[in-house]
Formats: sequence, structure tokens, C-alpha cells
Amino acid sequence: MRAYRMTEWGTPPRAVTVPDPAPRPGEVLVRVAGCGLCRSDLTMRRIPAAAGAALGWRMPFTLGHETAGWRVDTGEPVALVSPSSCGTCRYCVRGQESGCPYGLAGRGYGRDGGLAEYVLVDDPRALLPLGSLDPRQAGPLTDAGATAYHAVRRALPRIGPGGTAVVVGTGGLGAFAVQFLRILTAASVVAVDSSPARRSYASSIGAHSAYADLSGLSDTDVVLDFVGTDETITAGIAAVRTGGAFGLIGSAGGRHTGPWFSSLPRDGEVFTFQGSTIADAQDVIALAGAGLIRNQVEEFAFTEIDEAYTKLATGALTGRAVIVLE
Amino acid sequence: MRAYRMTEWGTPPRAVTVPDPAPRPGEVLVRVAGCGLCRSDLTMRRIPAAAGAALGWRMPFTLGHETAGWRVDTGEPVALVSPSSCGTCRYCVRGQESGCPYGLAGRGYGRDGGLAEYVLVDDPRALLPLGSLDPRQAGPLTDAGATAYHAVRRALPRIGPGGTAVVVGTGGLGAFAVQFLRILTAASVVAVDSSPARRSYASSIGAHSAYADLSGLSDTDVVLDFVGTDETITAGIAAVRTGGAFGLIGSAGGRHTGPWFSSLPRDGEVFTFQGSTIADAQDVIALAGAGLIRNQVEEFAFTEIDEAYTKLATGALTGRAVIVLE
Amino acid sequence: MRAYRMTEWGTPPRAVTVPDPAPRPGEVLVRVAGCGLCRSDLTMRRIPAAAGAALGWRMPFTLGHETAGWRVDTGEPVALVSPSSCGTCRYCVRGQESGCPYGLAGRGYGRDGGLAEYVLVDDPRALLPLGSLDPRQAGPLTDAGATAYHAVRRALPRIGPGGTAVVVGTGGLGAFAVQFLRILTAASVVAVDSSPARRSYASSIGAHSAYADLSGLSDTDVVLDFVGTDETITAGIAAVRTGGAFGLIGSAGGRHTGPWFSSLPRDGEVFTFQGSTIADAQDVIALAGAGLIRNQVEEFAFTEIDEAYTKLATGALTGRAVIVLE
Amino acid sequence: MRAYRMTEWGTPPRAVTVPDPAPRPGEVLVRVAGCGLCRSDLTMRRIPAAAGAALGWRMPFTLGHETAGWRVDTGEPVALVSPSSCGTCRYCVRGQESGCPYGLAGRGYGRDGGLAEYVLVDDPRALLPLGSLDPRQAGPLTDAGATAYHAVRRALPRIGPGGTAVVVGTGGLGAFAVQFLRILTAASVVAVDSSPARRSYASSIGAHSAYADLSGLSDTDVVLDFVGTDETITAGIAAVRTGGAFGLIGSAGGRHTGPWFSSLPRDGEVFTFQGSTIADAQDVIALAGAGLIRNQVEEFAFTEIDEAYTKLATGALTGRAVIVLE
Repeated sequence: MRAYRMTEWGTPPRAVTVPDPAPRPGEVLVRVAGCGLCRSDLTMRRIPAAAGAALGWRMPFTLGHETAGWRVDTGEPVALVSPSSCGTCRYCVRGQESGCPYGLAGRGYGRDGGLAEYVLVDDPRALLPLGSLDPRQAGPLTDAGATAYHAVRRALPRIGPGGTAVVVGTGGLGAFAVQFLRILTAASVVAVDSSPARRSYASSIGAHSAYADLSGLSDTDVVLDFVGTDETITAGIAAVRTGGAFGLIGSAGGRHTGPWFSSLPRDGEVFTFQGSTIADAQDVIALAGAGLIRNQVEEFAFTEIDEAYTKLATGALTGRAVIVLE
Repeated sequence: MRAYRMTEWGTPPRAVTVPDPAPRPGEVLVRVAGCGLCRSDLTMRRIPAAAGAALGWRMPFTLGHETAGWRVDTGEPVALVSPSSCGTCRYCVRGQESGCPYGLAGRGYGRDGGLAEYVLVDDPRALLPLGSLDPRQAGPLTDAGATAYHAVRRALPRIGPGGTAVVVGTGGLGAFAVQFLRILTAASVVAVDSSPARRSYASSIGAHSAYADLSGLSDTDVVLDFVGTDETITAGIAAVRTGGAFGLIGSAGGRHTGPWFSSLPRDGEVFTFQGSTIADAQDVIALAGAGLIRNQVEEFAFTEIDEAYTKLATGALTGRAVIVLE
Repeated sequence: MRAYRMTEWGTPPRAVTVPDPAPRPGEVLVRVAGCGLCRSDLTMRRIPAAAGAALGWRMPFTLGHETAGWRVDTGEPVALVSPSSCGTCRYCVRGQESGCPYGLAGRGYGRDGGLAEYVLVDDPRALLPLGSLDPRQAGPLTDAGATAYHAVRRALPRIGPGGTAVVVGTGGLGAFAVQFLRILTAASVVAVDSSPARRSYASSIGAHSAYADLSGLSDTDVVLDFVGTDETITAGIAAVRTGGAFGLIGSAGGRHTGPWFSSLPRDGEVFTFQGSTIADAQDVIALAGAGLIRNQVEEFAFTEIDEAYTKLATGALTGRAVIVLE
Repeated sequence: MRAYRMTEWGTPPRAVTVPDPAPRPGEVLVRVAGCGLCRSDLTMRRIPAAAGAALGWRMPFTLGHETAGWRVDTGEPVALVSPSSCGTCRYCVRGQESGCPYGLAGRGYGRDGGLAEYVLVDDPRALLPLGSLDPRQAGPLTDAGATAYHAVRRALPRIGPGGTAVVVGTGGLGAFAVQFLRILTAASVVAVDSSPARRSYASSIGAHSAYADLSGLSDTDVVLDFVGTDETITAGIAAVRTGGAFGLIGSAGGRHTGPWFSSLPRDGEVFTFQGSTIADAQDVIALAGAGLIRNQVEEFAFTEIDEAYTKLATGALTGRAVIVLE
């Protein structure tokens, strides 16, 4: 079958032909319908051998961690849980898989992922029935969607009627967050993005207002920062009301150098995380299945993967890139 | 009556004689039994006129915001809620008085407080029945005790059996926190303090272990930082496990200059606050009334207030200083 | 001024002329714009002397506990918190005023209420600024609206995407509940009412489906029962999924005579309550102010109060009856 | 090996010799150290064929669902999670395994359990490391202990300092509940049991007071009813304060025939459930490992199983019966 793989540390991935995978007892073979491309792939493409080894990654491996398709055994359309987790640790048995310390390698990051005609699933928890959703486009729900949902779910108890919820960075993840906030709260939803096109898109999917930066905002219930620079962190915490929350999802490495006692939201909450839980993914698929969210994707053929990654790297995409396998 | 008052901005407070206060309709006169001294008094003694005016403080006013005594009308022993709050704003009607924006002036900070023979109470919410507790010593429960309780209460959901809870700085507030954690959790409670005497005291009131600094700690459920320097913040967040909490109560003005995404506890919570709620004070008094906490105080006479403040300022106290009025 | 009052135990209320009330210090006089009629008034009209005395009610008193108008001192439009509460007990200082044991008498039930040209407010917590909302129609938000909101807020943590929330009885309170569920959840909202007109109205305000009874429902996240007969309780708990909630708001006195262990929702929650909190009323007014809920009222003049009560008693109203004072 | 098994529907179990089980890939063989006897076994011994078939039980099967021993592969001491669950449903991935609809058959109920020299474990989630705890006696922690813990954990948010928590029935499960309440709350813990010996034991493990029935109790934060008769349910809900909780764990089939609106705790919570979660069992083992709970067991040899069941059935045990295999 065709697969888009990392073949050597330090060498860009490429399309190759590999044998079809054969499921062992307890494994499920999935025929891939579509697989989303993620910004984190751009880092993985360049991962040094030492870093990969430290994470327990095996070389070669097929990229792609936003995968959906059909179970070969039953034909049922499924999406695959994107973050890997062990299922048995104290975090997993509490439904907090994003805290699992054993999820450093997974499908698309150190193990064979979804940019191929078939992918193996060795954990029944990872199979999410899609119902009537189209598996060609569902992949991004499991990562971009579920991560944004995790952020919104964490923030929900601090958002009340009459309040304001701010999403900083309304690209792939943030655009989902805007929609979840509209569906699950009665707050005024504010999009903050330096790109006029993304502001315009945010408004089209429900943001009540949109700004280029955080400078005019104050006394908000929640700021969810999908960018994470010095600027967004410092302006973000300043914009949160007493009792509100600042959630940092963007991994740009930003800092805040002011005194914490006087600058963090008083009696509020600052949180950060990576990934999502299986329940998050289930909920996002339920929301999509009910027609409540728009999952804007831009389709590419398997032969266009390099071109799609280039567009992703240069900000030339208008939605999440999905490679359609069939 | 005798009262220890700020008489002019920029001038140290002193003992003076003033007329006994006379309650108007709706007010309750309380004969003071004892009033605790707080580190924040040391700042108030030097507050510039502009700062005081900005907070709405009136000059002159009597110091003292850890007050207990007897209602003159009924003789009932009561402690007085320490933080001021409006009772009607969105925070107050949700039981979140520590978030009330209208509590900048109160008894002992801009209004007449408890370092006097009598004090007026104009808000029935502020009167906390003491039952069989001794009002001479109960004052610190309302501020040092309630603030520490607020921190512990915020952290409770993240502390489980088998976990570890760390208290950094086990002086006046931290010593209460150690005890609350022992009573309300099954965690291993760790005291961190640079002072061998305070570590020893922390062990005597229940800390399972005590260290001079945070360097050996990791994977803890919760760090409650009652110091708040650069060092305690940076080491504190590093010591918290995935899903844990770092609570900053100490107002030393510390900063953390590292990248937030990689240094804040993953999927956990960072919080800070000032003060406490009325419910916090009720709970602390209930715990003291049940004999579950030790409230270590060092008694001084009214004529020894200056001496007591000097001891407080120089770290020479072994417990909370309380001025006994009777 | 004109007032519609209970003048003697056991005698129906009637319109009389009484002196204008005069505010004492700390009281606020409110010129009434409109006052809603509530089903509970029908019981109050017949309350026996012994029952009234046991509740601490004074005779005579003016009826009406869904009041809005204008502060005479400032002209600001306000609604008045409907349930009475003390403000100082353990429930009140935790924002749980619906649990306050000292709220048995209040404006419209044992004290002068809103069916008059003016009403006195002796508690600043009771004044809810209305912003641009019309005080002629806002009264029902404080009782019918806030009670329904309290029920929905209790149930929220058990309602997830893909779930189902059922409202049994979609009259005055239930119609609000349908709307709150649509705004604050992504659940499928089901209206259950024996009246085709009310089912039709429920659909028009957002219910996804509507049925005459609960017989076809199962595995729902939540059933909120605003009727409360034997039938709705027994069918309601049977319709709730494992982990779901059954909330009983309707006071029809229903029972369930089956074994609890096998019939209550497993690992779920059954709750009941009366009234609402001040925060509930604040939130409902915020939702109305944002234009997110429809508050269907039928206006009557002061001279039509008896007629309006008759319509209420006979089920002839299409919305909440409001007596417009001006 | 020896095994105590159900061999035919409607026939009492007996000790037989069966082949040692052989683990397939993914399975772990555990050498049993001890296995607790549970009151539910008494029902299973008599289960009709139709009921067993409806639950998906296979005949024959070995009894025993409170098992601990040593992994044969590593020698590590482990306890086995008692309730069966699928690991992938919406309940399981949220850490709510007690809600899993696929857990009707498991080790000791329809599958081979722990009353044998060896038992197979096909789910890695079921293996709970015991550290230094003795596997001969740890079995009851996984069922009696974890179920009681589940009840206490549900009730915790409603128990505050100064409050009262009541445990009705302080036998096997209730005795654990008394201890968990002492460790995790500052409430006054009340034991209610008709047996003077059990009251005495409850006092010895920490109950502040003990009564023969609920008649003198009112305004309590929580009543946890491990009996579940008409009497305990009706008296139990009446004893709960506004805002409190009534938890029904006892499966005696009790009813309450009064009107719900006026008899359920106002603004409180009624809950019931069966079983526990894996996290519950982890927490109980952590508490036992820290030496914080006493797990009173009475040891019997494999040859004394019938005698032990007879003692269990006749109330002649002073602790949980454990069959020691080695």
C-alpha cells in the first residue's frame, strides 16, 4: 500500500510503498478515508534521532495522527483517537488520558499513522464510531477538535450568562473553540486574531466580535490562548476578571515576566495542557454528528501531501488540510 | 476608650483615647476581647496618603483586622469577619466575597478596627458566633486561618489518597494550612520552611515531613506557596504533578521567567487570591470549635502593642501575636 | 395608592386603597411597573390563619412576588428578588439562598408585595438592575424564570453532547427550562406535556421534539419534572440513564412506591428544591438582557386582577399573566 | 488445582479439582493469596438458570470476587479489581466504570473467580499493585472497601466542618465508610446499627457516636444507608439537612411511600449505585498502604469455605471472611 513515511531520522518523509499491515489477535485494521495534517507534523519531520529515541519512537513510521476510515472487519466508519495513552495508569482510569505519562509514542508519531491506505489499531478504546459522519473529513475532529474542546470544557465552570469568552488565535484549533463556546455557553464570544481572514471566518462561525489583539479587552470570564507568545500571555491574563480563567494551549513558548501575585487573575485559574481525552473526542464527534459544528477542511490527494504541508507551513490554508485516501 | 490608631498619613500609629463608639440602628457594638496583629499592618502603618485615598480609606482609623469579643447587646462571644465585602455584587451573592471589588476599606484598614476596647459592626454577615471558643484568642482564625483555609479548599479536589501536599512557609498562615490538610485529606503533608524552628513546629502540628527548600520534591498533588518569591514559585510549579495545583498566597512579588507552556503543571491549575470568604471563616471556627486545630497565639497587653509589632517585624514571634484587651 | 391585598385570613384578596409606603433609612421605594401572577398565589389566597401564623406572616399584606419597576430614588429599572432570605446564615453566605431557613415570609407572602403602585425593599441584595429590559414584563424572570434556571443549573454537569434533556410540564416554568437547556447545552431537548398547545409552544421556543407523556423515553441524561405527580415521577426516574439526574420541581405531591435501589437512576442523582438563588435571578436577567430567552407574558390592567387569576386557575392563559401597574 | 465452583444452575457450589488455567497472550496468571466472601455470593449460590443466562454467565464458574495474590510472571503482589467493565464505553473512558453496561459477568460471577489456587486476568486495568500490603487479606479492599469509598466520595462535597455524617449499617461495607469519613472529612461521624457489637466496633474504628436507629438524628449533612429497608430510607431522608445527601447502598429493596417534594432533602441529593470504579479501588489501596484504615478480616482455610459462608449467612462473623489459599 502507499504510505507517507519517515524513513530515517533527519530525512524528510516521503511517499513509499509498503506491505499491507496484517492485524494480529486483538487488533483492528482500518482502511483510511482521510487523514488531517497538523502543525506538529512539521516539527516531527525534523525530529533529531536523540529526541525521537527519548520518546521511544521507532523508525521508520508513517505520519498522520488525525485519521478516520472504515473498520475492515465490519465496514463501520470510525475515527481514531489521536493521543496515545496506556489505559491503566491513575490518569487513564480517571478519564484523564491527556495526563497519561505513557502516551509519548502513537499512531503518526513514532508508530505507523494514518497517511496510508491502511492503519492498525491495537486498542479498542481508540475506535470512535462515526455514525453518519463522513470519514474522509472527520480526522481533524480527533485532534484539533478534541484539543479545543478540552480547553473549553476546562473553562466552562467559570463562564456565566452575561460573561465574555475570548479565543486568541482562531486557526485550526481556535475555530473549533469559538464554536464550542457558542454551543455550550451564553457568553459573548470574542475572536482575537492578527489575520483579517481568520477574524472574518471566526465571525462567520459565530464569534460575536473579532479584534486584531487583546488590547481593548478586560473583565472577561475566560481567555483561551491558542497562540502562546509573550504578548498573548501577558495581555491575556490581564484581560481576565477576578474568578476567571486563562487557558494556554498555544505552544509558542511565551513567558510572562511580571510578578505573579499581582498579575495572575485573582481567585481565578491558569491552566495549560497538551492533547485531549477520549471523552473529549467522543463529545466532539457527537457535536459534529448533531450538525452543530462546522469542520472546515481543504481536501488534497495522496499525491499532494508535500504541497499540502507547504501550504500549512506558509499559512496558505483556509481550513484544516485533509489528505483523502479514497 | 483606648484605641491604637493611625492619626495621620505617614505617621506611625499610637495609643490614644477616643470616645466610645455608639451604635446606630442596624449596627452592633462589640466589646473587644483580643485582636491579632498581621504582617499587612506593617505596610499599613506606612501607607502613603495617595494610596490610602485611592483605596477610600478615612483618616484617622484604628488598626486591627483579626478581632473577636462579645456583642454588647447580647453578651454572645463573636469573631468578626476580617475581609470587607459589599454583600450584593455578583461575587458576594455567590459566596465569593474574596472577589468583591468593594472591599478595599474595612475594619482595621481605613475604618476603625479591633485594636480598641470597642468596635462597631455595621453588617450582620460579619458576626461569627464563637460558641465555647475563647474570644481573646479567636481573632487570627478570621484572617490567618480563613486565608489558609481558602487556599486548601481550592486545592482539595486535586489531592487524593496516596498523594502529597506541600506547604511552603509554615508561619502564621502556613501553620494553619498544614493542619487543614491533615484534617481534610489523606495526603502526605510536607512542610517547607527555611527556619528550623518553624519546621519543627510544623512537624509538631502534623506535617509528615519538613524540608528547608523544595529541591527534593516532585510529582506532588499540590504546592501551596505562602512565601511567593521567584525561588518558591519556580521550584513550586516544577514540583507539581500533571493534574496538580500550585496556589500562590505569599505576596513577596515573585516571578517565573521560564516559558509557561512547558513549565506550568500540565493539565493542572495555578491560582492566586487575597483574603477569604465568610464561609471560609465559618468553617475555620467550626474546626476550632471541634478542637481540631491548634491556634498558637502569643498574648500581649494593650500597652505592649509597639513591642508586639517589633517582634512581628523581626521574626521573633513563636505564634500569632494577639493583643488582649481584657 | 392602589393595592391588591389579603385583608383577613380566609377571605379572598381584593383591591383596596392604602397609604403610600414611606422608606425608612436603608430602605428603597420602588414604583411598580408590572407584577406577575403565580400559581402559588392561588394557594395563598386561601391560606388558613394557623398556617400563615406558623410561617410568620402578617395580616394584612399585599400579594405579588414577581415584581419589577423603578427605584424612586434613582429612576433605575429593577426587578426584585422573589424568594426572601436572611443574608447571613450558612446557606446565604454560600450563595445558596434557596436553602435559607429564614425566608418563609417575604414580599407578596406575608409582607407587602408587588400588586400595588409602590413596594418597599429593605434588603439591597433584592434589587436587580434591569438595564434595557422592560420592567413591565420582567417580574416573572425572578420567580418562574429563576426557579427553572436553578433546576437546569443543577442538572448541567450531567448533560453532555449527544445526550437528551427532558422537560415535563412546559407551562410557565418549564417553558423557561426548555430555553435554558437550548442555550446552555448541546443536548436534544424534549418537551413532555399533555397539552397540545403547550407542546406546540415548547417546539416554537426550541424543543427538538415534544410528546404527550414520558412513555417512549429512555436513557436520557436528565428529566426535569415541573409537574410532580405519581405518574411523572415514576416514569421520569425510569427514563433517566445511568449517571443521569431526575429533578423534581413540581409540587403536585407525587410519590413513587417502588423499591429505591432498583428504580432510582444508578450512579445518578435525584434532587428537589423550592425557589432559587439571587445568582440564579442575576443570570436569568443577563440571559434576557442578551435577548436569548423569550418571556411570554399576557398583560392585564390592575382592574383585571381577579379575571387574570381566574384565567390562571382555569388554564386559560397562553403566557405568564402580568399585571401592568402603569 | 483446587477451586470452589458453581457446577450446575440451582446446585450449591463445592470444592473440586480442575486443571490449572493457562494464560493466553495478553492474559496474566495470578496465584491467589486470599479471597474475601461477600454477601452477594449467597445470592449467586442460588441463582436460577434463566437469571444467570440473562446476565451472560457461563456454567461452571469459580466463585470469589474479592481476590488478591501474586502475578505469576513477576511475583508482584496485586489485588484484582472486583467489578467487571468493558474499558471502552462512554462510562469507562470517563472513569465511571460502575456505570458500564457491559460488566454483568466477571471474575466470580459467571466467570472463574478467586476461590481457587490460580485465577486468570484478561484486562491489565484489573491488576492493582499492592506494594507492601499483604495479599492474603487485601481482597475485601477491592469490593467492600471500594464500594464504601464510592459512596463516601459521592457525598464528600456536601460534608463540611461542623457537619455530621451518618453511616447506617456498620458491617463489612459500613465499617469502611466510617473510617473513610474520619480520614477525609472533619465531620462528626455517627454509626447507626441495631447490633451492639457492630456499634461498639464502629466506635473503636472512629465513629464519634453510635445509635441503634436514626430516630434521634436530624439536620445531618449526609446519611449513607448500607441497609436499605423502608425504615432506614424513610428515616434517613428525614435526617438529612437542606443541601445534604442521602446515599442508598444497601440492596434490601426498601421503599419510601411519602410525597417526594416534601420529603426528599431540599436542594440536596439522593443517589444510589452498585459497585465502584477502578480509581476507587486504587484510592482504597493507597489508604490501606498508608496504614490509615483497618481492614478487619477473619481468616479461613480453603477447606472451611462452607463453614465461612454459614457464618456469613448467620451473622456470626466479626470481620470480613477471607479464604486464605496459602
